[in-house]
Amino acid sequence: VLGKVVIVGVGLIGGSFALALKRAGVVREVVGVGRGETNLQRAIALGIIDSIGREPAAIYGDADLVFLATPVGQMAAIMQTIAPHLGAHTVVTDGGSTKQDVVGFAQAHLPQHIERFVAAHPIAGAELSGVEAARADLYDGKKLIIATPPRTAQNAVIQVSRAWEACGMRIFSMSPAEHDAIFAAVSHFPHLMAFALVDDIASRPNAEELFRYAASGFRDSTRIAGSHPEMWRDIMLANREAVLKEIDSYEANLARLKRALQNHDGETLYRAFQHSHDARAAWIAAIEAGARGPGA
Amino acid sequence: VLGKVVIVGVGLIGGSFALALKRAGVVREVVGVGRGETNLQRAIALGIIDSIGREPAAIYGDADLVFLATPVGQMAAIMQTIAPHLGAHTVVTDGGSTKQDVVGFAQAHLPQHIERFVAAHPIAGAELSGVEAARADLYDGKKLIIATPPRTAQNAVIQVSRAWEACGMRIFSMSPAEHDAIFAAVSHFPHLMAFALVDDIASRPNAEELFRYAASGFRDSTRIAGSHPEMWRDIMLANREAVLKEIDSYEANLARLKRALQNHDGETLYRAFQHSHDARAAWIAAIEAGARGPGA
Repeated sequence: VLGKVVIVGVGLIGGSFALALKRAGVVREVVGVGRGETNLQRAIALGIIDSIGREPAAIYGDADLVFLATPVGQMAAIMQTIAPHLGAHTVVTDGGSTKQDVVGFAQAHLPQHIERFVAAHPIAGAELSGVEAARADLYDGKKLIIATPPRTAQNAVIQVSRAWEACGMRIFSMSPAEHDAIFAAVSHFPHLMAFALVDDIASRPNAEELFRYAASGFRDSTRIAGSHPEMWRDIMLANREAVLKEIDSYEANLARLKRALQNHDGETLYRAFQHSHDARAAWIAAIEAGARGPGA
Repeated sequence: VLGKVVIVGVGLIGGSFALALKRAGVVREVVGVGRGETNLQRAIALGIIDSIGREPAAIYGDADLVFLATPVGQMAAIMQTIAPHLGAHTVVTDGGSTKQDVVGFAQAHLPQHIERFVAAHPIAGAELSGVEAARADLYDGKKLIIATPPRTAQNAVIQVSRAWEACGMRIFSMSPAEHDAIFAAVSHFPHLMAFALVDDIASRPNAEELFRYAASGFRDSTRIAGSHPEMWRDIMLANREAVLKEIDSYEANLARLKRALQNHDGETLYRAFQHSHDARAAWIAAIEAGARGPGA
């Protein structure tokens, strides 16, 4: 059981963490910190946080766990602010979608505390945002990736793992570099791709007509293009090298299909579509088997 | 009320048309035609068709409406088969996702019957396929596009419109060329894009690991990559010029965002993401207002 947990950035991710810890009965007190007073008042009204933290000197010294749940672009400044006030036992963790950059910030701004900094990434739907969207069950059955450097103390990793397990998550580990390469492929680039599609369509003179006839396939495939623009700009910049590699790979594959279409080469198109169809069907079947199975 | 309706290709689209006409009580008899005997027997068992049509000479002469619901790649051959047997009053229509090519097939293979051929496209989720997926409510509130040349007789257009209205659809009209340009943008290219993404990921040595960490955003944005490979190959080839234009447009927009990322230009990324976010939010709000409003 945790005593005091401080959540910096009480939105969907931070608010849902608080609600899930409370649901599990594993936290005594949740303090919320953030830039928006109205938002924090709302979080109190919704029972998400117990109080608002205003004076760094009073907040962090006796905290068991500090969760940084802001956009990644704000984390360096927050680390600088909290560094002088952290208690010797306080564990700091984050929920950022990129890990090499966050680890770099911690090395630069929390050097005294680096063994008690645990870099992590809860994989949960982030196209909604704001404290109003927070839910106690957001993390049920989802994956937490711990992607922290070898210097992090094992007992800090265990404490963070237990907190997220209490929220319903399954815990996975990898290096920060592996994390960033994998999520560039399956999350960051697909977001860029969807943003680029909607931006392209919406920039045309006949955009209104195009949207009128867009149907459920377009709606689903662009759902992530409704994601938080500032958060995703920060993610792209933070994971720039890996995202650029994904763009290169996708451009080459799209160019291959374009050549096939130019050449009336239905066989190449068919093979790519069939391969995609079968791979996705196997993936969905595995997810559904996992959801039914004992490991879920 | 229609007397005899013949459905060529009793899958999701053809089967749902039959069920919706029956639900509305506007058809006396539905005859199914197709390549797969097992599938047609299943359609009878499910109450979708009343009988199986085997001899062209016996099927088409007294039909009020023939609905071609096969992949577009099969339609030319089917038109050749049915042409000598159509009754003078029989109206022929189709459900193909491309219209200029189908109109061309009709001009080549149904020249005696061209005034009673109505090119149309029901916009309804097609990532499922097969007669087992057919549902009476598939078309409720969805859009039917009539995209037929000026030579089509008005009373044939009215008859097809009334049948689809009885299935719950809203009717829209445009030229075949307009249709193909619009659907290249909002449907055909987005499918190619999703197929290309999954094909790219699935072709890598670490594909299994990548899929393990892919989450709901990836799942939704690639739902259409689970679509029917043969059908979509046919669509791409049939609407080749318009799809190639969309690829060019998308490649240029992706290259612009890539340059921004190479240059650490967060402002350009942010503007594109914000534009996309806002355009999609406005589109969804309009859909939801339409679903509530009197025009729905």
